Parts: sequence; structure tokens; C-alpha cells
Amino acid sequence: MNTIKVFAPATVANVCCGFDVLGFAVDFPGDEVVLTLNESKEVTLSKIIGDEGRLPLEASQNTAGVAVQAFLRAIGMEQGVEIELHKNLPLGSGMGSSAASGVAALVAINELLGSRLTRAQLVPFAMEAERIACGSAHADNVAPCLMGGFVLIRDYQPLDVVKVNVNLDLFCTLVHPHLEVKTSDSRRVLRPTLSLKDAITQSGNIAGLMVGLAQGDSQLISRSLKDVIAEPIRSAFIPGFEQVKQSAVSAGALGCGISGSGPTLFTLSTNHNSAQQVGEAMRLEFLKNHLMSEVYVSKINQVGARVI
Amino acid sequence: MNTIKVFAPATVANVCCGFDVLGFAVDFPGDEVVLTLNESKEVTLSKIIGDEGRLPLEASQNTAGVAVQAFLRAIGMEQGVEIELHKNLPLGSGMGSSAASGVAALVAINELLGSRLTRAQLVPFAMEAERIACGSAHADNVAPCLMGGFVLIRDYQPLDVVKVNVNLDLFCTLVHPHLEVKTSDSRRVLRPTLSLKDAITQSGNIAGLMVGLAQGDSQLISRSLKDVIAEPIRSAFIPGFEQVKQSAVSAGALGCGISGSGPTLFTLSTNHNSAQQVGEAMRLEFLKNHLMSEVYVSKINQVGARVI
Repeated sequence: MNTIKVFAPATVANVCCGFDVLGFAVDFPGDEVVLTLNESKEVTLSKIIGDEGRLPLEASQNTAGVAVQAFLRAIGMEQGVEIELHKNLPLGSGMGSSAASGVAALVAINELLGSRLTRAQLVPFAMEAERIACGSAHADNVAPCLMGGFVLIRDYQPLDVVKVNVNLDLFCTLVHPHLEVKTSDSRRVLRPTLSLKDAITQSGNIAGLMVGLAQGDSQLISRSLKDVIAEPIRSAFIPGFEQVKQSAVSAGALGCGISGSGPTLFTLSTNHNSAQQVGEAMRLEFLKNHLMSEVYVSKINQVGARVI
Repeated sequence: MNTIKVFAPATVANVCCGFDVLGFAVDFPGDEVVLTLNESKEVTLSKIIGDEGRLPLEASQNTAGVAVQAFLRAIGMEQGVEIELHKNLPLGSGMGSSAASGVAALVAINELLGSRLTRAQLVPFAMEAERIACGSAHADNVAPCLMGGFVLIRDYQPLDVVKVNVNLDLFCTLVHPHLEVKTSDSRRVLRPTLSLKDAITQSGNIAGLMVGLAQGDSQLISRSLKDVIAEPIRSAFIPGFEQVKQSAVSAGALGCGISGSGPTLFTLSTNHNSAQQVGEAMRLEFLKNHLMSEVYVSKINQVGARVI
């Protein structure tokens, strides 16, 4: 087999109280990569579809190319690779767009070369791609994109990535207003220090969320989906944030927060119907601020990127 | 029945990464209260055994008395009560001594008056007693002392106390060096702010500890038992802290930290034998600093205070 097609899903990083340590994957939408081995010794991108010409075709500047290059370097192999990238995720949306492209390419090359590494072992190469995309080699999108489900990044030195067993069905609504926020901008506005009180609040909530997921306690999850670190600052980038969030909770969401660094908002619900109603309520609320938005409703994805 | 005897166990608050949000109870040691209803309308302490005369007999100044008074006030009852308190837990040790006395008395009065309230409902009255003892109405000792096991205090406003299901057997070693540290002193030295980086580290570790307990993953528990908030500062009160901690880990403990505000250190182990060896190693290490210490080895207590 010389060619393969891989789908990698959107991911929600931070998850309110899990700033920089937690992410999860959804089933849909996601990016696709068609990867083909060839006789050259280079990694090249033949085309990118769906980015409106905004992403670089230069392999060393594109997350798909960088991820594959890092992988080949690590296994000590010179291999010609041609990548065709189908961008379905909007750029700068907070839905893990750069992560999905890198992960799709990485899973594709690993699969074609005999699945030498596990999904968890692929995380560092996908992180290298994130460094190109947004300046920091963070794992809270790429790890859930690779592994599926909720993934905790307990530590970076050394990297400690933990899949969280979840004991209830959860549905995610992603609402992407037509705004663009750069991860680097949205990181710069964060304060470098915080009060001990806020750190304790955040600790209580992330612990509560973990226990809620493990014990299948939707009400505990709901009470824990709060963010006192990033949301108070980053929500300023999103017109009508408080009202949209309130509309989600009123429509039955367990909670609502900024997906990654935004502007996409995510919510969690315990059934598909509720997740759809939540999305519609949020879309209408954004409209009051003259913002159009896309709404995606999906189960939590349990397997990560997959060959299609 | 007019009289009852209740045992309330020692508790470990903070548990490294769970600063101000987590605590657990051990089986042994603990305080005992003999509580008797009488015809007066007052709450009195008849005697305190084992405190070397250091605790006030005045009911409104003693955690056992305050807890009972708060309980009676809440249920709107004037009831004569006589309390005999057997202090087995050393004062100012970080083993939840004040909490145990308050909880023992509270469970006793609730039981004698027909178990009107659940253990979780008793938490606020025990917190009132903590306010008398150490100036802050914290719940991370009293909640596990009442409910047993690992208890998360997710929030205080409103109070949200969550029992954490633990899927492995754990043994605790408590090593109490002959030093006294006042909770109020040890709280004052903490800095009111911290770096975002440290807050993220703490978040990753508390989340890891919760997942480790839920999934019965002792190695994840071990990796997560780290504290970047209180330990770097409070350990200065404990001569030889780093070496004692290292001796515990070398002897097989999953981790080691300061119990509450110290000076007692706690460790967790996966079997009784290991927990004993850990205790002996720590005791010997403290001796190098000319500190005698008591060692207690016990399973995690799952039921909290109990009638005996």
C-alpha cells in the first residue's frame, strides 16, 4: 500500500477549568489527508484544498509537513512523501485546526510504514507541528486528536499524557462565530500571575470535572465547568459572550466555555437532541450581535484520528 | 439512649497537589468523645484527657463544644449536653486534630438525636468549629473525617463536597516529628499570588491524582503527588524535609508530602508492609536531624467517624 487517507477530528482544548492541561476530541468535523509514498527523499505538499490559499505549501512551514518530517527524522528514515491536505476546519477558530492537519498526516505516515508507534508515542511529533503553527509545542489539541476522548496532559517535562475513562455519554456542540482570533494574540493577553484564591478555585473545578467524568456524574461535571483563568480575559474577544453562554445553559447544556483560545464556543450535553437545541439557541444569540456562526453537534470521539 | 461514644479519625488535608481542596481519612489514630444528654440547657465539657491541659474547657472555645452548639442552633433545639473529650491526636500536628474532636462530638449528638442529618449535611457545623480552632472555616479535614475516604471540596460558595470513589487499596503512613507548627503561622507564610505556570502544574497534578484514584493507577497517583504551592515554602519549617521525603520514596512510597500544614508528613503506599517500611525509613531519617517522631500506619478509612 502506497497511499492512504486519514481523517483527524476537531478538538476542544482547555475545557473551561482544564487550562493548558485538558482536551477532548469530537467525531465531526475534521481535516483529511491523503498521503502517498514516492521515490523521492522529500516531504512535499501537492495541494491544500479548503484553506482559500492561506496556508503555506512549504512542508517545513505546514503542520502536516512538519509532523511527517519530525516522525521520519525520529525513526531515522529518508522517505519521499506527498501530502494532499483537505482543510475542513476553519483556521484560527479554536477547534484545533492546525492539530488536526498535523495529526492526520502523522497517523497516515505511521500507518503506511507499519504502525511502528502507538498513538501516545506520536504525540511529540504532532507537538512539533503545533510549534510551527502557533509558537508553542502544546499537546492539549494533538493528544486528544490522536488518542480520542478526554486526554489529560499532566506534565510536559517529561511529557505525561493520560487518557481519562469517561462513564457517561456526552455530546459536544461547537459554535463557531465568524471571527478569527490568533492563538498567539489570545495567549499574550493572559496575565503571568494569578491569585492563590483563583488557583484554588481552578484546582477544585478541574478535580471536580475529573471525578464527574470518572463517576458519570453529569451534575458534578456541570458545576465544575468553570474557568477563572482564561475566560474572564479571552471572552472580551467574543461579542455577546456572556449572553451566548447563558443561552446555552438555559437550553440545557451542562456548561459552556471557550474552545481552546476561541472564538469557537463549546458546550457539553447528555444527549444529542439537547446538544442540537443548545447550538440553535447559541446561533440565534450570536445573531443578535450580528455574528453569523456555524454549529456542529457530535458525540465525543473515542478513537481519535482514523483511516478512511 | 442518653450517652454515646464516637471515634473520629486523623485526616490528611491538601494531599500534595490538592491544596485547600482535598483531604482523606485514615483508620487510626483518632480522637474519642463520650457525649451525654442531660436536663440542663447548656453544652459543657466535663473533661479533656490527653491534651496536657492545653485546650479550653469553655464549650464556645473548644471545637467539640462549638460543633455541638452550631448543630443544636441549626435544628432549633435547646438541649443539655456533657462532653468528655479524649485527645489522642497531637495538637498542631497537621493530622486534623481539631477537626477530629469537632466531628466526634457532632456525630455523637446527631446520632443521639435520631440521625437527623447525613454526614455531608454535618460538614458546615464542623467547619464552624474549625473557625474557632484555626481562624478559617475550612472543610478539607472535617469533610473526610465525617465521610471517610478521599473527599474533594470543589467549592465553598456554595459548599460542594464530593466523595471520590477510589479503585485501589491504599495505605497511609503518618510520621509526626516532635515539632509544633500552628496552622495560622503556616498559612501566613504562603504567597498571595503565584505564577500561571505553577497554577497549570498544580492543575495537571490534581487532575492526575483524581484520574489515578478513579482508575486505580498507582503509578499515575505517584507521578501526581507533587505540590508546587505550599510545600516549597512550608517545608522550611521541617528540618531535613527533603531527605525524609526522599527516604520515603526510596523505601517504596508512591509519594510523600506535608499533611495539612504540617509538621506531620504523610505517604501513600499500595500495601501495609511497604507502608511500615516507609515509616521506619522516615523515622530514622528524622533522627539524623535529632528529631524523634511517631509513626502511624493505617488503611484509608472509608466510613469516617464511627460509634464505638
